Amino acid sequence: MSSDAQARPTLETVAQIASVSRQTVSNVLNAPHLVRPETLDRVRAVIDELGYRPHRAARTLRTRRSHLIAARMHAPVDGISGAVLDVFIHALTTRAQERDYRVLLFAANEDQQEIAEYDELLSDHDLDAFVLTATHLGDARIAWLAEHGAAFVTFGRPWGADGGENAATHCWVDVDGAAGTYDATRHLIRNGHRRIAFLGWPEGSGVGDDRRSGWLRACREAGLDVSGLTRNVLDDLPAGRAAGAELMDGAQPPTAIVCVSDSLALGVWTEITARGLTPGRDLAVIGFDDSPTAAVIGLSSVAQPMDEVARACLDQLERVLAAKDAGIPPPGPAPILLPPSLVVRASS
Amino acid sequence: MSSDAQARPTLETVAQIASVSRQTVSNVLNAPHLVRPETLDRVRAVIDELGYRPHRAARTLRTRRSHLIAARMHAPVDGISGAVLDVFIHALTTRAQERDYRVLLFAANEDQQEIAEYDELLSDHDLDAFVLTATHLGDARIAWLAEHGAAFVTFGRPWGADGGENAATHCWVDVDGAAGTYDATRHLIRNGHRRIAFLGWPEGSGVGDDRRSGWLRACREAGLDVSGLTRNVLDDLPAGRAAGAELMDGAQPPTAIVCVSDSLALGVWTEITARGLTPGRDLAVIGFDDSPTAAVIGLSSVAQPMDEVARACLDQLERVLAAKDAGIPPPGPAPILLPPSLVVRASS
Repeated sequence: MSSDAQARPTLETVAQIASVSRQTVSNVLNAPHLVRPETLDRVRAVIDELGYRPHRAARTLRTRRSHLIAARMHAPVDGISGAVLDVFIHALTTRAQERDYRVLLFAANEDQQEIAEYDELLSDHDLDAFVLTATHLGDARIAWLAEHGAAFVTFGRPWGADGGENAATHCWVDVDGAAGTYDATRHLIRNGHRRIAFLGWPEGSGVGDDRRSGWLRACREAGLDVSGLTRNVLDDLPAGRAAGAELMDGAQPPTAIVCVSDSLALGVWTEITARGLTPGRDLAVIGFDDSPTAAVIGLSSVAQPMDEVARACLDQLERVLAAKDAGIPPPGPAPILLPPSLVVRASS
Repeated sequence: MSSDAQARPTLETVAQIASVSRQTVSNVLNAPHLVRPETLDRVRAVIDELGYRPHRAARTLRTRRSHLIAARMHAPVDGISGAVLDVFIHALTTRAQERDYRVLLFAANEDQQEIAEYDELLSDHDLDAFVLTATHLGDARIAWLAEHGAAFVTFGRPWGADGGENAATHCWVDVDGAAGTYDATRHLIRNGHRRIAFLGWPEGSGVGDDRRSGWLRACREAGLDVSGLTRNVLDDLPAGRAAGAELMDGAQPPTAIVCVSDSLALGVWTEITARGLTPGRDLAVIGFDDSPTAAVIGLSSVAQPMDEVARACLDQLERVLAAKDAGIPPPGPAPILLPPSLVVRASS
């Protein structure tokens, strides 16, 4: 098959420029655990600079791997909160491709179906690894993958009672949600707010409880009274709007509402504007996930660094796969917790 | 490898319930061109009802196909107009999986890079087929795939001067954009509007010119004067806002603006609200692609039937692949042009 692509830099070129042997370049690519960190950094820098990419077929012969990573595409709910996982898939696709991996998608409606897909993907497509998203309490997927010796990383902590055990057995990357809501609440306190409500999901979701804890910590540190200022609802705009209305109609309404998601925050925003009031002037509201809609209407929101999350997931997977190739046990987890950032707009 | 999945229905079960031989069921799956249409329909209905899915490994041995379909994940621009392609990828993943295919993603910034990825995907992962999106004038990707004998379908017409030639050589599915803007404009005319502007992309984009033509046809049929009522700008919110301001500040401002995309319509919407006016009451505005943001803020928009598009693309691909398996030339194109639907909200 002929190629219209530009002539590619070769392994030889990389070796010359990095002043190492061809074998060292090969090790950097296929067995990075054998290479000293300084050399690894130098050779990788040259690889990046030249845009060098080894031919897949040649690599498969050496490593007997498919270089396919599976990720689930979650069904769009209202296209707002859930869209952040699409952004993650985008970043993962781009960053995986730079490392000569491809992302294979699958669809599933719940965990047991996802596990059935794992089974098919392993037997039918010889998958190298899985990237799990939306981890939660009692996540059966993690136990299944560990039991079947599959390489995987989770975007999301091992939540809950068995967290300690899971944490000791697999690699994960997450965003520090509590730090995000803490920053959002601190920002409101600095702007003079004293009655700050939290609109969250029903208790028992690891992600939701974590985000609530950041708001609570900031309120407590500032000595604020939070009684009657939380509502827990399902993650959609109408639920957020109804809960926002309830808070606004209370005896002592809040002057600001921190929300666990943009879906809920947009519900509050809709209720504020429907009453002829102005978000940010009459009532402040802050969301989570920095959806495109938040940018359009001027909703402050906590943004997750999805490109960094994707890179960190791939770093973790390469550690797991290198151990597998070397025939040694999987590496211990080296959890990566990335900080989110608050994007301040007119609504606060 | 053990499976936690439910016990699956077998080929035998399908054959019994459909009252056909096992060979016929096998033909329905692997060589549908050999099966009479009525039988094909009956067996497929049973397969759907039972949720029967043949084991991939067994199929690959028979058909020597990877059952992998590649699709490009387009870089998110502002997360509004472009997000509609994510919705398509979602639908394609779900519908492909039902037919025992998986979607493999790749990233590319422009056509030549996309072509370089095709080359790698064919040689490294033995791809069965490609689904192209965002077709445009002088699309080099189509020629490359045809030349290399790759199976593919495009979501998007073969646009432009060489359209006739391309149209004769490949299968495509598209949404009738002109019908969408025609419906949107007719809806405004029925509501009493006489000065209806069109905010589009620079001329020369097949999709943009097509959408403009629907607006123009509706205006001409109603005998409306359109002089000075078009603006062509790049596809982002600030450009839409500036063009909206310019139209509003004209000597004879429009009472309604039909937009080629939600990004541009949201720009107009932002300008209207920034002036303290109300979209739909003071100035009507209609977008295209029915983004989640449109639903939140009450923007009327033309929706593309993405699930139908995904199904139609897979129908076309199965025709192409069946011909390939049978060793006969690719089937002639049987273009599928699907109607969009207008979602009316407060902004019109």
